[in-house]
Amino acid sequence: MNPKLQWLRNKMNSLDMQGIIISNPINIRYLTNIEAEGTLLLTRKENIYITDGRYIEHVHSILTLFDEIIVYDINDVSKDDYENFFMFCENVGFEEHYVTYAMYKEYMHKYKINNLVETEYIIEKQRMIKDEEEMHNITKACNITDDCFKYILKYIKPGMTEKQIAKEIEDYYNKYADGISFETIVASGENTSKPHAVPTNRKIQNEDIITIDMGCKVNGYCSDMTRTFFVGKILEEVKPIYDLVLKNQIQTLKDYKDGMSTRLVSKMVENDFRLHNYDLIHSLGHGVGLEIHEPPYISYKNDTLLKENMVVTDEPGIYVPGKFGVRIEDTVQITKFGCINLTNSEKNYIVI
Amino acid sequence: MNPKLQWLRNKMNSLDMQGIIISNPINIRYLTNIEAEGTLLLTRKENIYITDGRYIEHVHSILTLFDEIIVYDINDVSKDDYENFFMFCENVGFEEHYVTYAMYKEYMHKYKINNLVETEYIIEKQRMIKDEEEMHNITKACNITDDCFKYILKYIKPGMTEKQIAKEIEDYYNKYADGISFETIVASGENTSKPHAVPTNRKIQNEDIITIDMGCKVNGYCSDMTRTFFVGKILEEVKPIYDLVLKNQIQTLKDYKDGMSTRLVSKMVENDFRLHNYDLIHSLGHGVGLEIHEPPYISYKNDTLLKENMVVTDEPGIYVPGKFGVRIEDTVQITKFGCINLTNSEKNYIVI
Repeated sequence: MNPKLQWLRNKMNSLDMQGIIISNPINIRYLTNIEAEGTLLLTRKENIYITDGRYIEHVHSILTLFDEIIVYDINDVSKDDYENFFMFCENVGFEEHYVTYAMYKEYMHKYKINNLVETEYIIEKQRMIKDEEEMHNITKACNITDDCFKYILKYIKPGMTEKQIAKEIEDYYNKYADGISFETIVASGENTSKPHAVPTNRKIQNEDIITIDMGCKVNGYCSDMTRTFFVGKILEEVKPIYDLVLKNQIQTLKDYKDGMSTRLVSKMVENDFRLHNYDLIHSLGHGVGLEIHEPPYISYKNDTLLKENMVVTDEPGIYVPGKFGVRIEDTVQITKFGCINLTNSEKNYIVI
Repeated sequence: MNPKLQWLRNKMNSLDMQGIIISNPINIRYLTNIEAEGTLLLTRKENIYITDGRYIEHVHSILTLFDEIIVYDINDVSKDDYENFFMFCENVGFEEHYVTYAMYKEYMHKYKINNLVETEYIIEKQRMIKDEEEMHNITKACNITDDCFKYILKYIKPGMTEKQIAKEIEDYYNKYADGISFETIVASGENTSKPHAVPTNRKIQNEDIITIDMGCKVNGYCSDMTRTFFVGKILEEVKPIYDLVLKNQIQTLKDYKDGMSTRLVSKMVENDFRLHNYDLIHSLGHGVGLEIHEPPYISYKNDTLLKENMVVTDEPGIYVPGKFGVRIEDTVQITKFGCINLTNSEKNYIVI
């Protein structure tokens, strides 16, 4: 059996779970490499993937005998089959954070399960810790992002629109990686005051401030990096805020290590911002992997301890409504004694 | 109050619902034009939108006084506020097909609601019927799709890759519309046998068969069209299948009208395919609007009656594993006495 499914079976044993229904396609991708619409069942004895006609060919081309997964076409699964899958299973797990209330009720009826039990993100928690192959893919995505940023700094000229720059980044990622990992943010001038700005037709001007938040995918794994930089010259009013954000971004890099609390590290940045009369209005960071945003979420709302081989972002930002904003973000790998920057683009005042 | 919110309040009255929690961002977009992360609450007296710091500016820029929506920053909402929102509400609706089991439990606790009741797609059902403005946007998206297809037929030359063609379509849509409504499918040769093919680096050859499934967005509203066509000459072995698919696609256009059952119309195509020893392995069609796939779903599994001003696709397809596939799809508007084709590209044997 493939090692990730084997891990899950051991985990289920330890939780007294005799079966599990995996519905989240990202978790299915993680466990099996299958990218399709379907449901993965681990029953007492079998691993079963139920999909439909559109995906059967693709699924067979991905799986090997070694995976030990039986593939069903959903149209061939009878009412009795459903009721038999989990027969004699006392507890069957489901993903309560993915499955809708309506699906939950449907599962109960269809599979005739007595105890459909919450699994509290067991797979997501395992996904937080990256193995060697996953690290390889993420590192590659981060390297391509550094290269793309170097390229784009040379590409940008006053008169170009935000949309045009975003498109150039996307084209770069389509050429050198497996495309973007999220919609690229290119914000200029007062648009930088919106943390989630969508590229507009605003043209880059002299003495503009620009924020670019960008990332790509390699074999399904993501990168994520943000830089704020300047056209022609650095605006005096931005400097103190830029310095404050950068200082905290670098301090966080020093604080990130195995054993650090996500709440504590966020609180420290929040506190320093408040001392300067600013707020941290979004999370300090988040996990990166098959999803661009995944656990652990690094904010005061969430208390997780960072662990070796987690991959997370470090992205403090300050936004002055209607004026400008500054965000600086790296993707990093947590180690026993600190963290390793996976994105390595310049971040001291960049002027193009 | 805006007319869509007013409609919802009337609907709630008729269902004896004193409050409702709207969580699905597409439904929130439909009701308010807001595109952000947040939750819309209709309480006894107020319309409330709860979002976070990232979106406050954007939300205020979208809403007018006329909307009568009070905007809260989630960080300013206290435990007591949550408990007061639905005080004295007997029944509060929630979207059981969007809300996860975990969110459902959280809502119960946070809002202290006794009767959190299922709303059975009330908003989605309303969204099926398009008003004039919605029709205008969809029609525009369909016109741009026809133009793009005309353009792309001239653009394609042997030696180009599927990816390159998909990118050209995307660029076209970025230029003339608000981008793609779903990942464009460009499949050539044996790749056409996969209904959900992802564009590859396969190069177009002479005597190839090509399937393109494409659509764009205009003001949030989608278009969807598929054509299967040929390079240089039509393959003899494809002809009978092409003819069978086209015959059923045209017959379906004749059958689509106010009052037609989605199950019946699918069954008729399925039946004709079976008589020729083929299967219809996916739905015959689906609704199109703010989402590329939305109700009504046109398949034997679902029995809805088509109604005036629904917008749906008509897309039969036949796939011969490892060899080739044919799919032909239009987006159409249902009327009292028939349907109007919104996509009007050629579909008799197209040879480039």
